[in-house]
Amino acid sequence: MIAIDVGGTTIKGALVDAAGVVRATEIAPTPRPGAERTVLEVASRLAAAAPGVGTNPVAVGIVSPGIVDPGGVVRIAVNLDWRDLPLAQLAEDALGLPAVVTHDVRGAGVGELRCGAGIGVRDLAVVQLGTGIASALVVHGELVVGAGSAAGEVGHLPVIPGGERCACGQEGCVEAYASGGAIARRYAARTGRPATAEQIVGLLGGDADADAVWAEAITALGRGVLSIVALLDPALVVLGGGVAAAGDALLEPLRGSITGTLTWRECPPIVVSPLGAEAGRLGAAVLAFERAGIPVDAASWRRA
Amino acid sequence: MIAIDVGGTTIKGALVDAAGVVRATEIAPTPRPGAERTVLEVASRLAAAAPGVGTNPVAVGIVSPGIVDPGGVVRIAVNLDWRDLPLAQLAEDALGLPAVVTHDVRGAGVGELRCGAGIGVRDLAVVQLGTGIASALVVHGELVVGAGSAAGEVGHLPVIPGGERCACGQEGCVEAYASGGAIARRYAARTGRPATAEQIVGLLGGDADADAVWAEAITALGRGVLSIVALLDPALVVLGGGVAAAGDALLEPLRGSITGTLTWRECPPIVVSPLGAEAGRLGAAVLAFERAGIPVDAASWRRA
Repeated sequence: MIAIDVGGTTIKGALVDAAGVVRATEIAPTPRPGAERTVLEVASRLAAAAPGVGTNPVAVGIVSPGIVDPGGVVRIAVNLDWRDLPLAQLAEDALGLPAVVTHDVRGAGVGELRCGAGIGVRDLAVVQLGTGIASALVVHGELVVGAGSAAGEVGHLPVIPGGERCACGQEGCVEAYASGGAIARRYAARTGRPATAEQIVGLLGGDADADAVWAEAITALGRGVLSIVALLDPALVVLGGGVAAAGDALLEPLRGSITGTLTWRECPPIVVSPLGAEAGRLGAAVLAFERAGIPVDAASWRRA
Repeated sequence: MIAIDVGGTTIKGALVDAAGVVRATEIAPTPRPGAERTVLEVASRLAAAAPGVGTNPVAVGIVSPGIVDPGGVVRIAVNLDWRDLPLAQLAEDALGLPAVVTHDVRGAGVGELRCGAGIGVRDLAVVQLGTGIASALVVHGELVVGAGSAAGEVGHLPVIPGGERCACGQEGCVEAYASGGAIARRYAARTGRPATAEQIVGLLGGDADADAVWAEAITALGRGVLSIVALLDPALVVLGGGVAAAGDALLEPLRGSITGTLTWRECPPIVVSPLGAEAGRLGAAVLAFERAGIPVDAASWRRA
């Protein structure tokens, strides 16, 4: 199965077999414009490599940023200059294989649901904390898509009234405080020193500016997660994406922030994804197996 | 069909036929404790009255406040002193008829979905603005229940940081500003004059205190509705309950508040429920027909 994760920086592809084993990988920088040609080239190279590693590339699963409709058309992906791009159809035409395209964060949601922290959980929230912030919401075992294919935008809840301007134009969005990009930007603005979110996490406890920026990120993210909890009552919240790699430095204050506010309900368990950066690509592989009509026991993949 | 709406003040029952016509009604004050006995008495009186009006009471649908699990057990309803009350089972035993119990706001959601503003809408939010505030959320045509049967609590999103204390214990909840009770309480606190929310709406434009209390209610409610829009991307938002009777005095500033904040997405249409206070009871009747396995064309009821 060909699984491709289209990112703003790189396009990462893998050949994943029915046991969940990655048999080959391909990676290419994301051109702009023209990213769709690179997606098809990466997929074609993986298809060509398949016989040599003893697999059969039966279908293609692609996860993309932006707004992706249920028919596999990318309605808009600003960072890729895509608008109304029929990516699933392009992949089917180019490769002669069935193809499925979904939103990258919903792809990560499929990954958690089928082979990650959310196996068997019918009401689940997967919050991806990367360059931006969005969530995959699962209700009654199904991913929520939304009328305009745009559900899950927890990053653009304006939770700090009068707060920092977000790239979306609103003030005080969760994403303007708690995304990897926001943490780095806000630390640099305070100190004049550039640092990645990962480096800032390493400074916690010994650098008052890092502590302050992190505390504000936790406050904003806590309000976003609390909104999901109040509206959807999930059994579990999974945190994924680069910022979630902070682990307990994220989980402990986040749980404290939410339980300190939420007086009227227990906060559901909040965990860090066991799939890391692979969640989206694993979700794409699961969807490709589904698209091909091949039953697959993805719950066993992590043992593979 | 016997449909009963259990409220904190009154218990209202109706005999509803398959054409949606109300053939008889019963109403009783809500005792505390002992409301469950009154519910069963109201249902029994309606069952006894049915032959006289030419109907057959095939099943019972009840909507209740509190947390109601999918098995018809009221886990908790603070205002009724109910805890772990197996209301569906009690009704089946007392009446010898199949019974179904659901949360009152989700019952109103069923009403909107099957015979109100939401017919045919697969992604819908119904926000009930009464003494309290809660919502029925519909995803892919199905009501969202939540892992703990507590989804939809938009009233307890803390949207005004450091704001007024809510009955739930949090600060700045939507409900602490925009419910009928909050509007009345906040106006009285400002002016020393008691007034109902309905009277305060009548003062708008000529009473600066009414205008101020209303504007703050709109701000809080707008943030709550915006959270629903960002997370669930509904095709339509329906406002019900007593405060929604304000009509354009509510809709116009609310739409303005949301579109003034929401920079990155169109706001879906927001309308006032055409069912008014009947939404919950109509939803209970629809659920009772479903429980009895009788197909019913509820979409035609409003023409009845």
